[in-house]
Amino acid sequence: MTRQQLFEQIKAKESFLCVGLDTDLKKIPKHLLSEPDPIFEFNKQIIDATHQYAVAYKPNTAFYEAQGAKGWESLQKTLEYIPGDIFTIADAKRADIGNTSSMYARAFFENMDFDSVTVAPYMGSDSVKPFLEFDQKWVILLAATSNPGGQDFQELILAESGNKLYETVIQTSTEWGTADNMMYVVGATRPEALNDIRKLVPEHFLLIPGVGAQGGNLQDVCRYGMNKQCGLLVNSSRGIIYSDTTENFAKAAGDAAQKIQMEMAEILQRL
Amino acid sequence: MTRQQLFEQIKAKESFLCVGLDTDLKKIPKHLLSEPDPIFEFNKQIIDATHQYAVAYKPNTAFYEAQGAKGWESLQKTLEYIPGDIFTIADAKRADIGNTSSMYARAFFENMDFDSVTVAPYMGSDSVKPFLEFDQKWVILLAATSNPGGQDFQELILAESGNKLYETVIQTSTEWGTADNMMYVVGATRPEALNDIRKLVPEHFLLIPGVGAQGGNLQDVCRYGMNKQCGLLVNSSRGIIYSDTTENFAKAAGDAAQKIQMEMAEILQRL
Repeated sequence: MTRQQLFEQIKAKESFLCVGLDTDLKKIPKHLLSEPDPIFEFNKQIIDATHQYAVAYKPNTAFYEAQGAKGWESLQKTLEYIPGDIFTIADAKRADIGNTSSMYARAFFENMDFDSVTVAPYMGSDSVKPFLEFDQKWVILLAATSNPGGQDFQELILAESGNKLYETVIQTSTEWGTADNMMYVVGATRPEALNDIRKLVPEHFLLIPGVGAQGGNLQDVCRYGMNKQCGLLVNSSRGIIYSDTTENFAKAAGDAAQKIQMEMAEILQRL
Repeated sequence: MTRQQLFEQIKAKESFLCVGLDTDLKKIPKHLLSEPDPIFEFNKQIIDATHQYAVAYKPNTAFYEAQGAKGWESLQKTLEYIPGDIFTIADAKRADIGNTSSMYARAFFENMDFDSVTVAPYMGSDSVKPFLEFDQKWVILLAATSNPGGQDFQELILAESGNKLYETVIQTSTEWGTADNMMYVVGATRPEALNDIRKLVPEHFLLIPGVGAQGGNLQDVCRYGMNKQCGLLVNSSRGIIYSDTTENFAKAAGDAAQKIQMEMAEILQRL
């Protein structure tokens, strides 16, 4: 998917919501456990109920891998079920030495057909570049993450530049890709960082997790992070998919997604 | 597996060799492609031919994921085939926010029964600690990796401490685990770094990739990195498993492994 296509979808749906499919057998409604593939059944109903409000879906691979090969099948079926015009993110946080990152890229872009994959920066250029060799596919690079441990290393100040590590990660990586094939993960729990990040990458899309269960605020995120083409995908996982754990879960998820979408529609009118 | 058990195995086999199972359908002998599970068949014959010379096996998950659910099954079968006294490493380079890292830990330590998993440090404490909650299981944290891009961020000097980033990663992480449940990845292509790293973590085991195809030298690695309990697992992947690509591949892999083991036996006598 191109950046323009993503922006067109955002305008059409008046939404920049990404729904995180962190599907945990221990958290889904009990009545689904008798299905042949409970994880897929859950995702299917969530997608049916939320797709009109969402421009992206982001399954986190950890939740599928925890079920072994069967989980991997659930992931594949889920991906195939997502409507083709919606942006898909394999939240996998992969990266390895060059020839190995190429295998990961093949896993997510060829064996499966995700539009994007989240990538960890610690191993540097040759661990990221193989993901950038696919047409209309995206790297979403971890920059400033939403978790408490995100501050352990990402916020460290570097001697030569006086920058924080995550700023240097962003700056360096702009030499590897462009606003048309790279995005950055910036946690909603650090809205003040968005201001500085926008100076480094005014055009790039940012993937913002941490709204909802992790405590981030949508208005703050938009104030500091939005650009003229929206430039934001704001993710909510638990806040949507686990709104209700009875047989009413899908309806409740749809309502939760719609509520965020309506707030987003208002914000988008200011563009 | 405990540290003591690992050391006993090293002494018994006179080896600290780890064989990397980076099994690529495009590189294995053609005659295996007609097998129902060519990846597993290749691994099985490699394990049969090398297990007496190796104390650890390290399948890199990228090569299995590239085959989707079927690859995940090959990985599981491979793990089950490895003799129980040999240390197993899921070279997965995972890490995510706390509750998600817990799912990865379940994937590799419960759904599968690996002894250890490689973990990326960028997301900090809560992304690493969930892997440390399993008895006799190990985190092998990326510190100074062997690839060219390893220098992009890992070698940056930090303002406050004057340390390199990877040194701070090691130092900080010693507060999360101990020499009995953490190891570090240090590339063989940077033997000079081993000297400094040994000052920070004299007791910990280090996993050293990069000997062989990537150009690292075993003697240099041991000179700078060995401690009184050996403290090293030296990995070779392509240099062993792709020594020969005919029907003779397993025999050739065994010979390549034995050659390294014999060099290691000599080095161990100096302990």
